[in-house]
Amino acid sequence: MSEKKPILAITMGDPAGIGPEILLKTLADKKVYEICSPLVIGNVQVFKKIKDILKSTLQLHPIQEVPEAGFEYGRIDILPIEIPDIREIVFGKISASAGEVAFRCVEKAIQLAMSKAVDGTVTCPIHKSAINKAGHHFSGHTEIYAHYTNTSNYAMLLADDAIKVVHVSTHVALRDACDLVKKERILEVIRLLNGGLQDLGVQSPRIGVAGLNPHSGDNGLFGDEEIKEITPAVNQAKAEGYNVEGPVPPDTLFALAKGGRYDGCVAMYHDQGHIPFKLTGFEWDKKSGVMKSVKGVNITLGLPVIRTSVDHGTAFEIAGKGLASPDALLYAIDYAVKMVRNKSN
Amino acid sequence: MSEKKPILAITMGDPAGIGPEILLKTLADKKVYEICSPLVIGNVQVFKKIKDILKSTLQLHPIQEVPEAGFEYGRIDILPIEIPDIREIVFGKISASAGEVAFRCVEKAIQLAMSKAVDGTVTCPIHKSAINKAGHHFSGHTEIYAHYTNTSNYAMLLADDAIKVVHVSTHVALRDACDLVKKERILEVIRLLNGGLQDLGVQSPRIGVAGLNPHSGDNGLFGDEEIKEITPAVNQAKAEGYNVEGPVPPDTLFALAKGGRYDGCVAMYHDQGHIPFKLTGFEWDKKSGVMKSVKGVNITLGLPVIRTSVDHGTAFEIAGKGLASPDALLYAIDYAVKMVRNKSN
Repeated sequence: MSEKKPILAITMGDPAGIGPEILLKTLADKKVYEICSPLVIGNVQVFKKIKDILKSTLQLHPIQEVPEAGFEYGRIDILPIEIPDIREIVFGKISASAGEVAFRCVEKAIQLAMSKAVDGTVTCPIHKSAINKAGHHFSGHTEIYAHYTNTSNYAMLLADDAIKVVHVSTHVALRDACDLVKKERILEVIRLLNGGLQDLGVQSPRIGVAGLNPHSGDNGLFGDEEIKEITPAVNQAKAEGYNVEGPVPPDTLFALAKGGRYDGCVAMYHDQGHIPFKLTGFEWDKKSGVMKSVKGVNITLGLPVIRTSVDHGTAFEIAGKGLASPDALLYAIDYAVKMVRNKSN
Repeated sequence: MSEKKPILAITMGDPAGIGPEILLKTLADKKVYEICSPLVIGNVQVFKKIKDILKSTLQLHPIQEVPEAGFEYGRIDILPIEIPDIREIVFGKISASAGEVAFRCVEKAIQLAMSKAVDGTVTCPIHKSAINKAGHHFSGHTEIYAHYTNTSNYAMLLADDAIKVVHVSTHVALRDACDLVKKERILEVIRLLNGGLQDLGVQSPRIGVAGLNPHSGDNGLFGDEEIKEITPAVNQAKAEGYNVEGPVPPDTLFALAKGGRYDGCVAMYHDQGHIPFKLTGFEWDKKSGVMKSVKGVNITLGLPVIRTSVDHGTAFEIAGKGLASPDALLYAIDYAVKMVRNKSN
């Protein structure tokens, strides 16, 4: 590739989880260095420990400023973040020290992206309870990014090869989610999704908007949110020039999207989008019932910076055991690279 | 096979839809006669017309009583049901005559099963508006079967190779579905699902029960139906000896089931179960965006008779064009045979 490779700041996540492990495994893959220049934001001692566990021969190259990075395969450039009390860091354990370092890594990555020292950011999983224990009252990465980039209009895009979906609401009770199905928010989500899909290289995105009720309410027979909120939003989006259809019956929309009819979907509530997404993106081991790999990426739309993430958690139950799959992180890096390339074109 | 083959009454469905076509295509498949003795409940003129369209060389053998049937491949045994006004039957058109004959076929199939003249029944799609136009005020097959077999405790099982799911509620607004998440109904559904899975040959079914809210409410943080209704139902089911887990976060349950952890799932509302089911069972043509085939079976649990069905509708838009896939009907017949075999063992 003759073009300059995008510099990506990749945060290690909570050190008690699988973040540092999947990051080390990812950077052991030469392909990563072929498509981007990765810069780890993390703690050196944590990575030394993981190197021992994985018997990795990769070297660590701590730097203070981005220009010191060599981006050479075999030598990991790492911008070190200190841990308040390293003794608190135990695999699988929630602690304020783990939360603090995980939070500081994210904060640093955002600073680097805002100052354009890096082209994009990729995050490994943090633990909500740990960052809150450390005094940072955010429910997750998305809210931290929104806060530090002064963004009020944002949405989370879940993406895999088969399905790309944005939600009208996420972590609220299903009853409350019904109340949040409002024309203005639906329109906002359609616009964000359209922009996000364009950033991913889809020139003229075809968007499907789900109904809220079964069969989209069957013309008001069971539920009228389709008539009062969703249809007006879709009509206005069409008037604004978006290539959008809906309300599409929820149980058909994602099958249609998987089949290629839509580039992206708008889901009315958390599980409406998460159920099909996890079903297509996650793989389980039939015998053990254990998750084998996750091929899902979580992208925050509406930010002034690029942020992609694995779509799984800290997986405390397998942390430190060398069992975690780096597939989702490779995937998240791939998506971040795509977004940098499309934004710069 | 030395055992006596099960006699299945198969209804033709609405003659303006794809029912007769998929039935004729199905009976052109020798395998069907190897596993069962099929008896069509339908209209002879309708089948003659479909034979012409498909250029089928199969013969029609009208009979008045089941013992007259020969069950020989190549000659379709048909128990004739008359049509009030044959001129009303037009492909893709809702009519009282189409609704009447479709309804009478179902009624006849139920009578035959209740009197044990046949071992089980399989239904092709009917149209709700057509049967209502004919004066039969039912919302679908399930309600007709419940009424004519005096069944008050029933549920619909959706089944394919990957996922088997029963719903706590179906065609109600999502807001109302939240109100229907009640301990007693969940327990009833667990019991029906357990029996249904045993009828399908699963000796000790492992059942996963979904939560209602995202992340099953995260310990009451968003929604408390898990705490008030679902957990108590699961606990009582365990006390009754069922192998049941839950509430499982809705976006994980179906991925786990697909991965082999559960034999059956309890969904709290229509789309929670229909979205993953349709996603795994339906296939779409990528280019045209048209449904290619459907591998889903709809089984009514709790009835004194066996009833399986295709899980698609009348597909008026392609009726009479020779395009419909018989895959789902073959699948429904297969499931009915399994159920007859397991019930008689």
